[in-house]
Amino acid sequence: IQRYIVTKLGEDWIFLVLLGLTMALVSWTMDYASAKSLQAYKWMHGELRDNVLIQYLAWVIYPMVLVMFASFFCNLVSPQAIGSGIPELKTILRGVVLKEYLTLKAFVAKVIGLTAGLGSGMPVGKEGPFVHIASICAAVLSRVMSIFSGVYEGHKSLTLSVFVSLLIVGGVVPIIRTCWCVRVLWEWPPASLPQWENPYGYTDILTVGCAVGVGCCFGTPLGGVLFSIEVTSTYFAVRNYWRGYFAATFSAFIFRVLSVWNKDAVTITALFRTNFRMDFPFDLQELPAFAFIGISCGFLGAFFVYLNRQVVLVMRRQTALTRFLTQHRLIYPGAVTLLIASLTFPPGFGQFMAGELMPRECINSLFDNFTWTKLSVSAPPPGLGRSSAWLHPDVSVFLILILFFVMKFWMSAVSTTMPIPSGAFMPVFILGAAFGRLVGEIMATLFPNGILFDGIVYRILPGGYAVIGAAALTGAVTHTVSTAVICFELTGQISHILPMMVAVILANMVAQGLQPSLYDSIIQVKK
Amino acid sequence: IQRYIVTKLGEDWIFLVLLGLTMALVSWTMDYASAKSLQAYKWMHGELRDNVLIQYLAWVIYPMVLVMFASFFCNLVSPQAIGSGIPELKTILRGVVLKEYLTLKAFVAKVIGLTAGLGSGMPVGKEGPFVHIASICAAVLSRVMSIFSGVYEGHKSLTLSVFVSLLIVGGVVPIIRTCWCVRVLWEWPPASLPQWENPYGYTDILTVGCAVGVGCCFGTPLGGVLFSIEVTSTYFAVRNYWRGYFAATFSAFIFRVLSVWNKDAVTITALFRTNFRMDFPFDLQELPAFAFIGISCGFLGAFFVYLNRQVVLVMRRQTALTRFLTQHRLIYPGAVTLLIASLTFPPGFGQFMAGELMPRECINSLFDNFTWTKLSVSAPPPGLGRSSAWLHPDVSVFLILILFFVMKFWMSAVSTTMPIPSGAFMPVFILGAAFGRLVGEIMATLFPNGILFDGIVYRILPGGYAVIGAAALTGAVTHTVSTAVICFELTGQISHILPMMVAVILANMVAQGLQPSLYDSIIQVKK
Repeated sequence: IQRYIVTKLGEDWIFLVLLGLTMALVSWTMDYASAKSLQAYKWMHGELRDNVLIQYLAWVIYPMVLVMFASFFCNLVSPQAIGSGIPELKTILRGVVLKEYLTLKAFVAKVIGLTAGLGSGMPVGKEGPFVHIASICAAVLSRVMSIFSGVYEGHKSLTLSVFVSLLIVGGVVPIIRTCWCVRVLWEWPPASLPQWENPYGYTDILTVGCAVGVGCCFGTPLGGVLFSIEVTSTYFAVRNYWRGYFAATFSAFIFRVLSVWNKDAVTITALFRTNFRMDFPFDLQELPAFAFIGISCGFLGAFFVYLNRQVVLVMRRQTALTRFLTQHRLIYPGAVTLLIASLTFPPGFGQFMAGELMPRECINSLFDNFTWTKLSVSAPPPGLGRSSAWLHPDVSVFLILILFFVMKFWMSAVSTTMPIPSGAFMPVFILGAAFGRLVGEIMATLFPNGILFDGIVYRILPGGYAVIGAAALTGAVTHTVSTAVICFELTGQISHILPMMVAVILANMVAQGLQPSLYDSIIQVKK
Repeated sequence: IQRYIVTKLGEDWIFLVLLGLTMALVSWTMDYASAKSLQAYKWMHGELRDNVLIQYLAWVIYPMVLVMFASFFCNLVSPQAIGSGIPELKTILRGVVLKEYLTLKAFVAKVIGLTAGLGSGMPVGKEGPFVHIASICAAVLSRVMSIFSGVYEGHKSLTLSVFVSLLIVGGVVPIIRTCWCVRVLWEWPPASLPQWENPYGYTDILTVGCAVGVGCCFGTPLGGVLFSIEVTSTYFAVRNYWRGYFAATFSAFIFRVLSVWNKDAVTITALFRTNFRMDFPFDLQELPAFAFIGISCGFLGAFFVYLNRQVVLVMRRQTALTRFLTQHRLIYPGAVTLLIASLTFPPGFGQFMAGELMPRECINSLFDNFTWTKLSVSAPPPGLGRSSAWLHPDVSVFLILILFFVMKFWMSAVSTTMPIPSGAFMPVFILGAAFGRLVGEIMATLFPNGILFDGIVYRILPGGYAVIGAAALTGAVTHTVSTAVICFELTGQISHILPMMVAVILANMVAQGLQPSLYDSIIQVKK
């Protein structure tokens, strides 16, 4: 029996390493592809600046094509790939069998659809779909490995010789074999196969998949493990903590090493690194402002969930319009993209809401170390970079932040209802960062000379407020407290740990009293 | 039934807040008292520098008195308070009933004994006893609250009036009442009371207590929650995650606010704050060194557990010596303290092993931002502070680090077997930091010009190696991976997250294959 345990243990290791490696490669490839797509988008926009009409058409049509392609592809290949994936996963973990949610087909549809969606610059997130993708990966991998362990353990030589001879036959009639293989793999794992024979059950595999999904999505292994603890069921097996920790760390490690190898980064660092001062990150007298952010984010998060559900319910109602949209499935995503892209068109209304910034640039600029209310548009300091999009010669920073927040709020709520693979985590994260930044800039205006403590004057850091706002709003929408951990890992700074945890807890208290979490809300609506 | 839920929920909130508040106050008071004691110790040592003999006597007798007092007090009041407390807690959480481990008596003995032990400057830790203290607090609090909720829910007015009349009677015959109260409370909670009637069982309360204990011990709420997940049983209730998170955050918050209020710190920051550069914390080429630290720490951690067990077993054997020691219980701790204090006497052998540094100063200096091999003793740079203890005019830094590591290794293993409340976390943490620092200094000597990357030369940070070593060795000894999280929170810097997690996982893999965890080892020995 000892040999059996050793075999199983070794196998589990291999499983975790393979899962981490695969997901890191997938995550990095998708990041690379979508970043190139966004680069092409911005380059086109810049090159066409001579003719505003053509520029506008290019700005609008590019994302429309990508989003409609994503929607078309998902509808064609696997409608199960639409949406976030976390609600479905929660349902599966509660014991409900959802058909074809964990097949290779859904994997391909989700990866391609998500890459196109991310490359369009629309406010759609990567985290939810990634949890789904990693779970499919984990499920398929565990099936493959259980078959192989069967080969090794049972009738070793016989099965192996059969396997080898099959390969030779496959070499003789390659075309037929390939077709057959593809056809079988496509629907893999088939429903007829006895489910999950291996010692670690269904839940264990999906829990690890969930941890790896979050972990390699942003390179945040710890947050991934905690998130998977919070979204999985009521009781959590401690051995999964260890397995998730291992797989997520390995995955995040490979993911970050790949970006060093590609010269995106000089070394392994955080994704949205901040550079706040360490010696005195904030004063105790700023705590009421942090608490205010937490409580407000609780209300805003609940409202976001409500708005998102209302949009879905309106689309669900049987009217002439919805019947028309059901028949022509590409119209709805196309129209939504047209509307959002038109409003964010930089030379048009977009100039009042930093429309030219892509999601990642938004976060980087909202977390920066400047105090925008103190900057003059005419003489921007060196190193301001993309944050200059928030400064407008005629309009105050506050108005731009408010416009950005209000417009992006409904845009995010609407765009996550489009029939493409899309998560809500990242858009909500940006919204929270904008809200926190707004409060931070107001504080910086109220106390223009900073806060006096012990004879030394400390200036207020609006970027720190943005980080806290981002954690609080995502925490309120998803009803989790591990967003705080994800935030530390994303920014690479832990100096704001205590106020952030307080804000996240307050946001959760308010939001949990008002609305279900976004995932539970989607489950309710889909029922 | 809704009213019932609301009542229970409200009660749970109050319970968590009260628990957090109490533990923060206890933790802060103990820190304050032991810091004052250490200050007095060092002051005395400094004042007596004219006469070496008297200086030596003072250096040796002061800790001897404190340790023997702690041992005497614990033996007198509650022998259950001796040791770490985590092994006993693990046993209780597995369902075994240990008598009088969760009474107020044990609480008082543990708090006073631990304060004396910490104030003596011996290598004893605070974390394990703190988990025990917080668990007692949680257990007693929940009993008190369940009685009060019984008062409120059941026959409200009647019981209240009885309660009030009892108070009046108590006013009339105060002395008898007080004596009676003290006598009852002392053995609280009595074994005759029906155990744990409240909806949250035994496990739930102790799990939260464990999280709060670690959380307010160093001000590391997240690490506390994760640590409590790892040490509690095989399955973990997710609602305890939330409750532990809340209570530990509140506790850590109050703990840090108290130190701001006392002007120990200007604002809420990490306990052992590091100031490594953020832009390029380490290079990928340094990874083999980090992996080496991880694997070595795995072996060293297993050896530490082995050594600790051997010391206990030798003391257990029936010889003339041990019979003598059992009869005179104060001899053993006195002798151990005498030996350790004699060896660390700064003008004597202590000068070759930085003997003058108290545990906290050790950590702060090992985590500092200098490269000791590049410093000259004659002209120390400004801001070196206590780190100058590591530099000796005649002996190289390497030799001092090796001597420190070897001597402290057996000292820590022996001193944790003394019959006083003492944990092993902090001594092992210091050992790990010293080992990491040693590797870091060797690396800095091998690559004196730093590592060339992309045309820019980056110097090696030995302090970063020390942080990684500390996390890896504590992880190996306790068989947990959450030590990495505790490390981030202690240092307030998350820049080394990925190499640290890799090192901790490697250390765990090696150590788990060789020896049980320190806590399991103590459980086995005590059986």
